[in-house]
Amino acid sequence: MSSPVARGAAWLRRIARRSRRLLPDSKHPAQMVVAGFALAIAVGTVLLMLPISSETGTVTHWVNALFTATSAVCVTGLVVVDTPGHWSTFGESVVLGMIQIGGFGIMTLASMLGMLVARRFGLRMRRTAQTETKSLGLGDIRSVVAGVITVSLIVELVTTTVLTTRFTLGYGESLQHAAYLGLFHAVSAFNNAGFSLYSDSLVRFATDPWICLPMVIAFVIGGLGFPVLFEIGRRLRHQRRYWSLHARVTLGTYATLAVIGVAAFLSFEWNNPGTLGRFGVPGKLLAGFFHGLAPRTAGFNSVDVGELHPATMLVTDVLMFIGGGSAGTAGGIKVTTFALLAFVILTEVRGETNVHILGRKLPVVVHRQALTVVLVGGGLVFVAALALMVLSPFRLDAVLFESVSAFGTVGLSTGITSQLPQAGQLVLVLLMFAGRLGPITLASALALRERGRRYDFPEERPIVG
Amino acid sequence: MSSPVARGAAWLRRIARRSRRLLPDSKHPAQMVVAGFALAIAVGTVLLMLPISSETGTVTHWVNALFTATSAVCVTGLVVVDTPGHWSTFGESVVLGMIQIGGFGIMTLASMLGMLVARRFGLRMRRTAQTETKSLGLGDIRSVVAGVITVSLIVELVTTTVLTTRFTLGYGESLQHAAYLGLFHAVSAFNNAGFSLYSDSLVRFATDPWICLPMVIAFVIGGLGFPVLFEIGRRLRHQRRYWSLHARVTLGTYATLAVIGVAAFLSFEWNNPGTLGRFGVPGKLLAGFFHGLAPRTAGFNSVDVGELHPATMLVTDVLMFIGGGSAGTAGGIKVTTFALLAFVILTEVRGETNVHILGRKLPVVVHRQALTVVLVGGGLVFVAALALMVLSPFRLDAVLFESVSAFGTVGLSTGITSQLPQAGQLVLVLLMFAGRLGPITLASALALRERGRRYDFPEERPIVG
Ligand SMILES: [K+]
Ligand SMILES: [K+]
Repeated sequence: MSSPVARGAAWLRRIARRSRRLLPDSKHPAQMVVAGFALAIAVGTVLLMLPISSETGTVTHWVNALFTATSAVCVTGLVVVDTPGHWSTFGESVVLGMIQIGGFGIMTLASMLGMLVARRFGLRMRRTAQTETKSLGLGDIRSVVAGVITVSLIVELVTTTVLTTRFTLGYGESLQHAAYLGLFHAVSAFNNAGFSLYSDSLVRFATDPWICLPMVIAFVIGGLGFPVLFEIGRRLRHQRRYWSLHARVTLGTYATLAVIGVAAFLSFEWNNPGTLGRFGVPGKLLAGFFHGLAPRTAGFNSVDVGELHPATMLVTDVLMFIGGGSAGTAGGIKVTTFALLAFVILTEVRGETNVHILGRKLPVVVHRQALTVVLVGGGLVFVAALALMVLSPFRLDAVLFESVSAFGTVGLSTGITSQLPQAGQLVLVLLMFAGRLGPITLASALALRERGRRYDFPEERPIVG
Repeated sequence: MSSPVARGAAWLRRIARRSRRLLPDSKHPAQMVVAGFALAIAVGTVLLMLPISSETGTVTHWVNALFTATSAVCVTGLVVVDTPGHWSTFGESVVLGMIQIGGFGIMTLASMLGMLVARRFGLRMRRTAQTETKSLGLGDIRSVVAGVITVSLIVELVTTTVLTTRFTLGYGESLQHAAYLGLFHAVSAFNNAGFSLYSDSLVRFATDPWICLPMVIAFVIGGLGFPVLFEIGRRLRHQRRYWSLHARVTLGTYATLAVIGVAAFLSFEWNNPGTLGRFGVPGKLLAGFFHGLAPRTAGFNSVDVGELHPATMLVTDVLMFIGGGSAGTAGGIKVTTFALLAFVILTEVRGETNVHILGRKLPVVVHRQALTVVLVGGGLVFVAALALMVLSPFRLDAVLFESVSAFGTVGLSTGITSQLPQAGQLVLVLLMFAGRLGPITLASALALRERGRRYDFPEERPIVG
């Protein structure tokens, strides 16, 4: 009984027991998540205000520091000051650290909230049905933290290596500077942060697949969400035969939205002289591919967003609002939430009663949770856009794009963020914070409050939010 | 047994039996409604193309005739040609006739579909619960038709009289011309049609309460919906002690939206030199009151819509999308649909399971019906706005406003409708048709398809759509 394996197992049981005792008993575990993010932003703001953080060695205005800290911790990428121009290398490192903390924090905390929901649901389920229907068989907090760190390090390391090689060989940077550029952009990409050390983001690399493709791969992996990565990992190690409903819905919806995004971008922008018009066909395809995926919710751009056709902007608004996978570094209401609502409506229009998704029945309470997340999110964006129109001279297309970008923690910008009055920038700060934590905490708070229900059929619940 | 009362009762029972036999047995009674409206539009288009219909005595292009006929039958009010400038008195009379047919048709048909839903629901209800919980105790088809005709005639007659008096005494029109103007605007107002014999709608009367207030009263009465008017009528005759859930939700939501609409309009436009800025305080208040109510969904304007602040336009977009009361001449998704969703979300956020509205429990199936109507409607507006942006150079704020105005059969316009290419105008034709009939037919089709359910608690269902 005192073998390392047994001791390890006992330790894991103790952690699991402790986590069961700590988290579900505290009335709103989501509150801890909110407090943690607020603290990280506060510390980041103070650090960024220090003279050492700015290129000029002067104190940065608190609104600019707060905006940048929020944008970094919430892995958004909207900026009010030029990242390479305003911040010193120390300031850039603070930004990079906050991105890493924010991305790591959201992946672990969202995974744990998801586990908590799955466990509660699982306990009720056991009366009647399979335990294998739980979406999140993630084990315990320790394995989540270890898994997130492992995935983050591997992806960021590989991406850093590829980017550093390219910056050295293709652009003649010194190895040291290329490694710095590679690390910054790799961490920013995997965490879907959208921060770049180039003032024009990746516009200068629009036709370079050696920069663009590693970035896309990194932000797609980060944006799929840890539970899906965890399942992929288990399949790759042949430990698991089936896909959970959550993974199938996430991957299917993600792929569908990617195809729609790329197709829309290519068709609306193909001849636009401000965007794809000046590239050859391979360049158009690469930039179109990049921008079809970036709204979910990486935030890098390889063409000038301010030059987009209004139709592209509207499609991008919708894609940014939907966002990426649950419990990952992507934002938005999440692809599963969107897919659930789509299935509910499809069921309703077909005149059927029970919502079936890919051979599973969807619990009725989940319909309403998904609806709530979508409509509360839409309401937030509406109020923010309205406030920005009152506070600034910009019109609907511009303020809506910026609001959705902030809510979805995307970071794409038509360029108005830095021109907004400070009150408008503070609106975006609130929106980034609410957009980063709102869907996750709202959905888990709703799910954890379900009480006194009896399930008389096998059901499976994907993650909402 | 052969007293007039008994014979009348037997006749009513026969009608009721026949209506039960005819309507529920045909698989989609909603199809008849759609066919009837399409036929009316086709006839109207042909009539408007006749040379006698135009001021110049020439054939009107089919797109212009189709657009005007659709706008009139769907009681929208968007125009591609200037109503007084393009159409002859005969043409104007055709428009007026189509408005009357469209308004009468939608009120009776929507009321009947609502009855059908209530009856099906009522039959199932009787197993367990009160029959008095039915929202629509309207009796039968005959009483609906008679009621709609009575209300229409009374309101239109009174409004015509007041307007005619004002046009004669206040503006020096001949009695004959004043009566024509009075009749046209009274019918247009009661049916929420938004057509005017003045090229600038009611802008010249913005500060004249003798024109504006009768118009507001007429379009509010028409827009509340026949079931609510019917209940008000019964209460006025002391035949009924309680309000149905449908009436309470409609009146409460209508009033709330009116207050929000007026407050938003006054605060965003108070000093706008293009709109309220040039009026004194009483004029500002009158025009603000008018425009706070017009988006639900009358379509008249007393200030230049093209000069509105972007924030006012966005608020108006939402109000136009919500629209007015069910089974009336107003469009949109209807105030009850909006209120139901709001209550569902409020319940969810509160962590409660059952949705209670004003002391009644809301059937779970209704949640999904309301959701479907809202999201399908939103999807239509999105696709239309996207199409208009591809087809024309106009930007999001303008095309969204025009799309929502068409979908909600509102008729307010920033002025771009007549400048759109014909393909864009045809998009609006489809949108007006879908917006007029979609929510009603979709909601009733969904409700009529509910099968095999058992209710074990007293429930009451307001009308969705
Ligand atoms: K981002
Ligand atoms: K109208």
